[in-house]
Amino acid sequence: MAERPLDVVHKSLDKDVLVLLKRGSEFRGKLIGYDIHLNVVLADADLIQEGEVVKRYGKIVIRGDNVLAISPVELE
Amino acid sequence: MAERPLDVVHKSLDKDVLVLLKRGSEFRGKLIGYDIHLNVVLADADLIQEGEVVKRYGKIVIRGDNVLAISPVELE
Amino acid sequence: MAERPLDVVHKSLDKDVLVLLKRGSEFRGKLIGYDIHLNVVLADADLIQEGEVVKRYGKIVIRGDNVLAISPVELE
Amino acid sequence: MAERPLDVVHKSLDKDVLVLLKRGSEFRGKLIGYDIHLNVVLADADLIQEGEVVKRYGKIVIRGDNVLAISPVELE
Amino acid sequence: MAERPLDVVHKSLDKDVLVLLKRGSEFRGKLIGYDIHLNVVLADADLIQEGEVVKRYGKIVIRGDNVLAISPVELE
Amino acid sequence: MAERPLDVVHKSLDKDVLVLLKRGSEFRGKLIGYDIHLNVVLADADLIQEGEVVKRYGKIVIRGDNVLAISPVELE
Amino acid sequence: MAERPLDVVHKSLDKDVLVLLKRGSEFRGKLIGYDIHLNVVLADADLIQEGEVVKRYGKIVIRGDNVLAISPVELE
Repeated sequence: MAERPLDVVHKSLDKDVLVLLKRGSEFRGKLIGYDIHLNVVLADADLIQEGEVVKRYGKIVIRGDNVLAISPVELE
Repeated sequence: MAERPLDVVHKSLDKDVLVLLKRGSEFRGKLIGYDIHLNVVLADADLIQEGEVVKRYGKIVIRGDNVLAISPVELE
Repeated sequence: MAERPLDVVHKSLDKDVLVLLKRGSEFRGKLIGYDIHLNVVLADADLIQEGEVVKRYGKIVIRGDNVLAISPVELE
Repeated sequence: MAERPLDVVHKSLDKDVLVLLKRGSEFRGKLIGYDIHLNVVLADADLIQEGEVVKRYGKIVIRGDNVLAISPVELE
Repeated sequence: MAERPLDVVHKSLDKDVLVLLKRGSEFRGKLIGYDIHLNVVLADADLIQEGEVVKRYGKIVIRGDNVLAISPVELE
Repeated sequence: MAERPLDVVHKSLDKDVLVLLKRGSEFRGKLIGYDIHLNVVLADADLIQEGEVVKRYGKIVIRGDNVLAISPVELE
Repeated sequence: MAERPLDVVHKSLDKDVLVLLKRGSEFRGKLIGYDIHLNVVLADADLIQEGEVVKRYGKIVIRGDNVLAISPVELE
């Protein structure tokens, strides 16, 4: 019944995710790609610092070694 | 009689664990997945900073290189 | 439908990209090369610190382990 | 007559050890498992900060890359 | 039409380059060698801190993991 | 006539060595084991901080990635 | 005509070198050994901090991952 980490990432494709960074800030956007290093590609990604959106990127590739965690965004 | 680290993690599947992070904070949630890099997947995960729950994630994949330690939560 | 991180980088060849660095600053220039470590080569690259262009390099090779993220620059 | 590092760790199984962490604090508990990355499993582990026990874990898996050193506890 | 990062470095052999370091300072000198880790060898290398030449080395081997970027020096 | 780093470590077996740590402090004790990662085992090891012995360990395994340098102690 | 980094190190055997460390200080001594990780062995090595010799080691093995750069000392 276990879900492997990359499977969870895979199931989030084309959905909104939070990418928490080691440096404290986070990206929120649609996950459109990833690889086994947890490099991820987001579309329409907001960079969020202390709760505020400080920048927006149409498409962004995030290098996996900066990632603390990835969480699918839940819709209410 | 030794228990290998990954066996201990494996036996904690579907149970509550604490994931202590190098940066000082910790996640507490149900362990629903992991891999050999100690990437872990938690469900219903609370992010705890200085003893306070500061955020909750329905599902979260934590990149193993951020992990200090993983401890099964003991039930009284 | 997923786009692998390196494919996104590849499609940005000969186009302007932002290379966000772990240290906070960023380069903006034309992507003219890369490899699987996300080492990248930019032409006519501006180094930007806190929104200001502080230096310009005709050609620069950036070592991948300094990279936080790479984002294609969108044209209006 | 040399003792390889992992042999010393192996001989400490089921005995009390100190696990000194890079971040300065240390765990003291019974070593019940380890692997070649120096990931270790402790039972009844006290987390010690500046000489004070600040927390206790029934069982804990410590990721090896956080470890400064491991020392068998000597009994008087 | 892409230029691989190591090709750009190779074409800079026997020419002046800037080697930007992660720690902020930089070396400027003639590139006389390199390898795939981006270890580089400079001749007549100036160490530059905040725009000032603070030291000169007749020949110096720089370990690649300290390198932020390498840029050929343009001549006017 | 060159002495390989591990050979120098090997010849120090059963002799007193200083193990300088990246974090600034150092251990001094009898080298009783090592491996290719420069993980080392010391017996009767003093932990020295700013010239003062602050702790003593009967036996200690030091993880190699914490090591700055290893120096055989010279006897007068 | 290129000189590979390890060749430059090899040609410095039995000669005085400066070993600049990532942490800012440096060793100066006779290079008597090295390996492909840029682990180096120095004899009669002075540890230099801010231009001052603060310590001397008869023989010292420096772990390569601490090294910023290695420079042959030029004789006048």
